[in-house]
Amino acid sequence: MADHLIDLRSDTVTRPTAGMREAMATAEVGDDVYGEDPTVNALEAEVAALFGHEAALFAPTGSMANQIALQLAVSPGDELLCDADAHIVTYEIGAAAAYGGISSRTWPAVGADVDPDLVAGMVRPDGYFAVPTRAIAVEQTHNRGGGGVIPLATLRELRRVADADGLALHCDGARIWHAHVADGVPLAAYGALFDTMSVCLSKGLGAPVGSLVVGSAEKIERARFVRKRMGGGMRQAGVLAAAGRYALAHHIQRLADDHAKAARLAEAVAPFGVLATAVRTNIVPLDLTKSPLDARGLAAAARAEGVLISVLGPRSARLVTHLDVDDTAITQAAQTLTTLLGP
Amino acid sequence: MADHLIDLRSDTVTRPTAGMREAMATAEVGDDVYGEDPTVNALEAEVAALFGHEAALFAPTGSMANQIALQLAVSPGDELLCDADAHIVTYEIGAAAAYGGISSRTWPAVGADVDPDLVAGMVRPDGYFAVPTRAIAVEQTHNRGGGGVIPLATLRELRRVADADGLALHCDGARIWHAHVADGVPLAAYGALFDTMSVCLSKGLGAPVGSLVVGSAEKIERARFVRKRMGGGMRQAGVLAAAGRYALAHHIQRLADDHAKAARLAEAVAPFGVLATAVRTNIVPLDLTKSPLDARGLAAAARAEGVLISVLGPRSARLVTHLDVDDTAITQAAQTLTTLLGP
Amino acid sequence: MADHLIDLRSDTVTRPTAGMREAMATAEVGDDVYGEDPTVNALEAEVAALFGHEAALFAPTGSMANQIALQLAVSPGDELLCDADAHIVTYEIGAAAAYGGISSRTWPAVGADVDPDLVAGMVRPDGYFAVPTRAIAVEQTHNRGGGGVIPLATLRELRRVADADGLALHCDGARIWHAHVADGVPLAAYGALFDTMSVCLSKGLGAPVGSLVVGSAEKIERARFVRKRMGGGMRQAGVLAAAGRYALAHHIQRLADDHAKAARLAEAVAPFGVLATAVRTNIVPLDLTKSPLDARGLAAAARAEGVLISVLGPRSARLVTHLDVDDTAITQAAQTLTTLLGP
Amino acid sequence: MADHLIDLRSDTVTRPTAGMREAMATAEVGDDVYGEDPTVNALEAEVAALFGHEAALFAPTGSMANQIALQLAVSPGDELLCDADAHIVTYEIGAAAAYGGISSRTWPAVGADVDPDLVAGMVRPDGYFAVPTRAIAVEQTHNRGGGGVIPLATLRELRRVADADGLALHCDGARIWHAHVADGVPLAAYGALFDTMSVCLSKGLGAPVGSLVVGSAEKIERARFVRKRMGGGMRQAGVLAAAGRYALAHHIQRLADDHAKAARLAEAVAPFGVLATAVRTNIVPLDLTKSPLDARGLAAAARAEGVLISVLGPRSARLVTHLDVDDTAITQAAQTLTTLLGP
Repeated sequence: MADHLIDLRSDTVTRPTAGMREAMATAEVGDDVYGEDPTVNALEAEVAALFGHEAALFAPTGSMANQIALQLAVSPGDELLCDADAHIVTYEIGAAAAYGGISSRTWPAVGADVDPDLVAGMVRPDGYFAVPTRAIAVEQTHNRGGGGVIPLATLRELRRVADADGLALHCDGARIWHAHVADGVPLAAYGALFDTMSVCLSKGLGAPVGSLVVGSAEKIERARFVRKRMGGGMRQAGVLAAAGRYALAHHIQRLADDHAKAARLAEAVAPFGVLATAVRTNIVPLDLTKSPLDARGLAAAARAEGVLISVLGPRSARLVTHLDVDDTAITQAAQTLTTLLGP
Repeated sequence: MADHLIDLRSDTVTRPTAGMREAMATAEVGDDVYGEDPTVNALEAEVAALFGHEAALFAPTGSMANQIALQLAVSPGDELLCDADAHIVTYEIGAAAAYGGISSRTWPAVGADVDPDLVAGMVRPDGYFAVPTRAIAVEQTHNRGGGGVIPLATLRELRRVADADGLALHCDGARIWHAHVADGVPLAAYGALFDTMSVCLSKGLGAPVGSLVVGSAEKIERARFVRKRMGGGMRQAGVLAAAGRYALAHHIQRLADDHAKAARLAEAVAPFGVLATAVRTNIVPLDLTKSPLDARGLAAAARAEGVLISVLGPRSARLVTHLDVDDTAITQAAQTLTTLLGP
Repeated sequence: MADHLIDLRSDTVTRPTAGMREAMATAEVGDDVYGEDPTVNALEAEVAALFGHEAALFAPTGSMANQIALQLAVSPGDELLCDADAHIVTYEIGAAAAYGGISSRTWPAVGADVDPDLVAGMVRPDGYFAVPTRAIAVEQTHNRGGGGVIPLATLRELRRVADADGLALHCDGARIWHAHVADGVPLAAYGALFDTMSVCLSKGLGAPVGSLVVGSAEKIERARFVRKRMGGGMRQAGVLAAAGRYALAHHIQRLADDHAKAARLAEAVAPFGVLATAVRTNIVPLDLTKSPLDARGLAAAARAEGVLISVLGPRSARLVTHLDVDDTAITQAAQTLTTLLGP
Repeated sequence: MADHLIDLRSDTVTRPTAGMREAMATAEVGDDVYGEDPTVNALEAEVAALFGHEAALFAPTGSMANQIALQLAVSPGDELLCDADAHIVTYEIGAAAAYGGISSRTWPAVGADVDPDLVAGMVRPDGYFAVPTRAIAVEQTHNRGGGGVIPLATLRELRRVADADGLALHCDGARIWHAHVADGVPLAAYGALFDTMSVCLSKGLGAPVGSLVVGSAEKIERARFVRKRMGGGMRQAGVLAAAGRYALAHHIQRLADDHAKAARLAEAVAPFGVLATAVRTNIVPLDLTKSPLDARGLAAAARAEGVLISVLGPRSARLVTHLDVDDTAITQAAQTLTTLLGP
């Protein structure tokens, strides 16, 4: 997008900073298919350590990182439980079923809320007659759930549900960094609850490309094989991993700024009754049910004023703050949106 | 099972009657893979006509009939919506995902109830970023939903939901015959609402083997191909189709007897507060939440008295009436169960 | 097909004999999904014993029996080796790849011949970089290979190849009975060489419907699960199994007659130079490369004279003898074909 | 690998040059999932133009580029023909079958040779009974075929075979650049013969990461969707595409040097009778059938002397020349290998 636009569509649109570019330009690299890229290896070790896991694997996208983890946890024809708005059954183009043969049932999505008892009630035991449940997946923070954060206590209950039936618990942690900053929960405290996680460097953290799967050494060894089958075995990926290492070092704590900016945006549009839920992180969901403009109408009008927003449904839209939107831009965007939504 | 047992586990356990055996023994047959079995052809034409569709295809099981229909409606990676207790995502061993690559999301199951607005809200449009919804499936009557019947008016609303987004609507009609008898809705009135249906000859109707997929001529032509891929292209299947034709001619209206028997059983166990829902057809669900016996305990104790019942969950069981359980057996089973459940 | 036609298209077209019908009409049956059909259980035990294996499983078709066995032997993405004309990669509609995710490479088909050294050279070891080979499949007798018989010595060498790399060896034994009769090799001698086999009751043996997978108890337990996923879990399948048991008792040794009839047909057409290979069993391949009529032309002309044959390719056709073609019919078919092929 | 090692294992090990790093550091980028990365867009347009196709799509690996193209050409259960040593059925971890459900049959691999008549004879027509062939794939140059080049005339004959049956023709062109340089055939002359191609930037051309699928605008639009399902929808991929554009501008013609270096190596080892085939491009296959050292032995001994080679089989190895191996290194490697192989 042209530089004068204020792009609130997603935090995926950030461009690498000068420091990050410098890190990429000087990265030591090797052939990662042979396991010989020192920068990739360092990044994998760092991320594993952050979450208290044995190992991690670099992947070109968060979708691939999630799908690799799901294929490890659930064999073809077996079952995954998640919420009906989860990224893994919404935005990953059906890969879990199409490529992994994974059968899924979903619980209703209400923001980022999860009711562990309801989940427990959906689990089907192993046996001859019914599809056996093998894994539960949650999303932290929750993308379609307005950037909501699942409380640590809820995740602990889900862990108990999973343990009771010997299920794997996976976290789509594309924005786990935001939960960590918003709730002050250590990354390793999250890590301790999940069998596998995907974490993303190219959303809030601002790296251009890359996610990681986190898990046990045994799982990550198998993940390497699945990654190759998915077509994710890149060669001198250290040029990307270097950006990721830079992002880990410099861009986690600053997410608090993005949260504050989102809160300012939310406050600005609140008078028009459009806030669907409390804004906790960097996503502001717009409920346009009572608005004179529908989502497409608002997006078009905002674009004409230099502000880009995402359309999620006929009367549902989304604003996302990130590294490339500064305070001035937030002020301007808030003004534009209140004008458009106002009477 | 030995003849002295009263088998209320399922209506799949019926054995062919003398008349049905005679029909099988004298059936004219041919090679159905070449389309040359006259009895299969006649059965397919009859069933298509019953539901007002152009064509039908014989299949060895209801699971295969359902899966063929789903594969016709939903391409790998695309999406199917159904309820979380549907047979197609519970008892068909994950075939939709494992073999069809079909991504599924589910709405909560509450008996046989369906809320068309809730379903409409789950539909995802075609597009580049999200999994497109392609089909909705319902189950009539609903197996895990206690043999409940979806009202015709609800089905008509679902048809409107499907039409609004160009979706296919499939009916798992393994026990559509029971709905027809219970609600007095003509089979063709059901048929008019669905793109495809599966209907079963070997449950309530008492044939030993066989189901059919019902749909347009174009769909059934493709179904023939998918059936072969599934390993369902039998040769002289007329010996089975003959039993099916006999069942259609003699065993539909008599389902009213099975419903009456189920009502008697339900009435008998009602004093113990175990009835989860109103019994409409041939299935009596037992909610054992407050019972001194759990489901396995009750099943074991009943078996010791010569009565077989199905365990669905830790405190959930099921009684099913059918062709091979006469009034005397019902009286005896009612007595056995009230004794076991009583104080 | 009408009774006056001489149907040499395939041995799948046979209709049950009076004795077989009688066996079906009086068969004791139960619900085979619950493992309670006594006739199915008896058939499975008999067939397992014939081949010296622990267990067997009844399936509606030979295709399903093969595909179940392949899914047991090869995980998605792993590799199967077979010849390029094998039934499993030709006539089973791509099920191994579509449903089992099985990657296949093929060696050139030359009749029923197999070169164990060539097969050994194709095996790829387990490892990180290449698709690991997991199974080898052969077909005995070979359908597209003109009913040819693989010598026992060759099969023993293939067993050694499989053992050297820890591979499974599967036999598509749809017509293993013909090999047994033609070469005088005991069925158990074949059985001893394979991890799994499929054997068919509805081709040469004349039963209307049914095949079995043969293997170890552990494999057959898993096969039961896969069969349900494939939609092959029939209920009172004893009506079909009864025909199969009758076929085993009465129709194996008589295959020698079918072989003799095939030899007579082969001899009759030999003067026209059309015999591609030596006829060993009940299949006569016609090589029409030098014939004035191409395959479709010959088939149409023969049909006009009441003789049905199969077209395999532009200049390739096939005659198959079976239970429903008697000596008079063979004489008449030979006359018809020599007239049509003659100058 | 450490810098003092001479790495002849593969041309995938090259590290970006200073100029390439500079191009990456200054690349203009955007969110490529939204189609907004200008550098990716420029690269895609350039590569499409080079091959005379309408469009191209950037992918993280050559494996993904191939698999996307195969999924476009062949539906689940349909058939692909290729040679038994093709990269797509050897080194892509069974993805075509596991994820695409693609059934494959193979012709015997003899270097890079292809016999169009043999391929034509394997094609199966569309129809009810057999798996329909949908695509033929070739590999130019051929990796396991010793870097051999398929003559343009042969490719033209294959195009005729494909056209005769309405099949797609795909080229795994990971090293098409080498064929172009070795045979002097314009890239567009190759492009004109194929429905889809994959071409790789990170092997001979020396970019760190990236391949492209080339095809019609309609196909590439669908490819974009499949790429997302495969997990290949990267964000600011322009940092990688910039390296690719640099490689196209500077590293194609210099492949002649790599070929010359390979020829020198081949000449050096020729006296020991180890050359399996004539060396045409940058790959030197070593046939160690008569060597005192087997492949693992030779690789270990060479590594001890600072030379890395690839083991392909028990008595088969490979040397590959590339951007990071200069003339001095070739001299030293030749000396090391002749010493090890000599008497």
